[in-house]
Amino acid sequence: MVAISANADQLYIGIDGGGTKCRATIFSPAKGVLGTGLGGPANPLHGLDRTLESIMVSTQLAIENAGLSLSSVNDMVAGLGLAGVNLPSLYSQIIEWHHPFKKMFLTTDLHTACIGAHEGGDGAVIITGTGSCGFAYVNGKSTIYGGHGFAQGDKGSGAWMGLEAVKVSLLALDGLGPQTSITNAVMAQLQAKDSMAIAEKMAGKPSSVYATLARLVIECANQGDEVAVAIVKDGAGYISDLAAKLMENNPPRLSMIGGLAEPLQKWLRPEIAALVKTPKQPPEMGAVYYAQSSFAV
Amino acid sequence: MVAISANADQLYIGIDGGGTKCRATIFSPAKGVLGTGLGGPANPLHGLDRTLESIMVSTQLAIENAGLSLSSVNDMVAGLGLAGVNLPSLYSQIIEWHHPFKKMFLTTDLHTACIGAHEGGDGAVIITGTGSCGFAYVNGKSTIYGGHGFAQGDKGSGAWMGLEAVKVSLLALDGLGPQTSITNAVMAQLQAKDSMAIAEKMAGKPSSVYATLARLVIECANQGDEVAVAIVKDGAGYISDLAAKLMENNPPRLSMIGGLAEPLQKWLRPEIAALVKTPKQPPEMGAVYYAQSSFAV
Repeated sequence: MVAISANADQLYIGIDGGGTKCRATIFSPAKGVLGTGLGGPANPLHGLDRTLESIMVSTQLAIENAGLSLSSVNDMVAGLGLAGVNLPSLYSQIIEWHHPFKKMFLTTDLHTACIGAHEGGDGAVIITGTGSCGFAYVNGKSTIYGGHGFAQGDKGSGAWMGLEAVKVSLLALDGLGPQTSITNAVMAQLQAKDSMAIAEKMAGKPSSVYATLARLVIECANQGDEVAVAIVKDGAGYISDLAAKLMENNPPRLSMIGGLAEPLQKWLRPEIAALVKTPKQPPEMGAVYYAQSSFAV
Repeated sequence: MVAISANADQLYIGIDGGGTKCRATIFSPAKGVLGTGLGGPANPLHGLDRTLESIMVSTQLAIENAGLSLSSVNDMVAGLGLAGVNLPSLYSQIIEWHHPFKKMFLTTDLHTACIGAHEGGDGAVIITGTGSCGFAYVNGKSTIYGGHGFAQGDKGSGAWMGLEAVKVSLLALDGLGPQTSITNAVMAQLQAKDSMAIAEKMAGKPSSVYATLARLVIECANQGDEVAVAIVKDGAGYISDLAAKLMENNPPRLSMIGGLAEPLQKWLRPEIAALVKTPKQPPEMGAVYYAQSSFAV
């Protein structure tokens, strides 16, 4: 690769693609953030065409938001953080795309989230949203724990917590498990009047639907429901273990990202909770930093 | 309904339809079992056309096996036990089918399994195969516990046990859970060399695929692996609770049916294990009894 020195006028676009949405941010080293755009799902595991479409939609919206001409896309250096591209086949499919950018650099969404959280520096992140995963990037070496997907992995995630909520509700309704306030909360949210209705409404649903029930478990736990407390402690215990494992890689900083990061924080083991630092920048800015550092090489 | 008295020459066909296969048995009160046939999947939840096709294939094979002419199907009184027909919509779809039988009586697979296990008498059954469920039929009243489907219900079943096997393997490989001999057994069976390969091979797989791993957990538990023992005890504990709950309905007999019935028996609580009686007849004979008793009304 030819070394090109960084240029203050160079435009960068950072793109963070996930299972439900795709965010793009246009950045100029001289002027900062110029515009942002939001597109649809961009997880290549769930479809390449949809992913590329969402990338282009978020890019075009960011260009419009920045007040730039659409042709400016050809001058931009892009950084992409996408789920699933740790698989060689998906990495190749994206990298072989005839993209419109001046140059495109591709890595995992975990990597760009980590770079963003630590503003370009080394560090570790725990993602606890619909799924859960731990990632460390230290001295050029990346390490992943968890992230094995619903329902076999992703402990401590929203989908995991939602599945546990359904399980304890069904057991309680059968008189085969302890009574819990989760049951009524789940029945109300699903508008299900008995166990068979719960089972029918949830059968075969994707992780994102289970994740909508996680909030109920946290609320019941915060009100002292014993079954809910046990679930949240079990999930938070795993996240604490994940954090301790990540710290074995000696990251200078550790952050938590995702919808459950804030509500779970107080349930972590105290020595772990004390380690967790607020993310400095969002994943799409991590993708900008990744584009900058890759382009500068 | 016009009352028709039972006739020793009347032919009955009992059909037991499940998620993987459909069994048909032709029975004559005068001569006993005349023939049997095996067809493909017959769970109307997973497709009506396929179910009706499997019913007809198993029926035709049973007719050939009995050495009867195909037209004899029009003289037979059929009893059908099918999963899912406790849902009114599925019951209607099957009952409205232009079937070839002289008469057709439809009930759930649980009901015919129970009738078969107790040779026509009242009783209770626990199914522990790919899924798990408890059913009691006493004094004309049926009661169901569990059977809420994978992965939210069906505790103690093969699919549940297989999912637990995958979970503990992934945790162990990440160094986030105790080491267990299950891990190597799962990796060998799946031909997966690391946690990501396990996750990829199992992602989105149906319950029947998870159930193929249950045997490994039982084997590891029988060899004293602590993690495997904990899983099997947890599952067997639920099945024991299910049995105790069924006994509240005062069934004269209790049987266990399904692929895990025999291996789980020694892990049940002793007072429960002592209650479990061998099923007298298979579910397709239960369907024959159901046809006979319904036709005689």
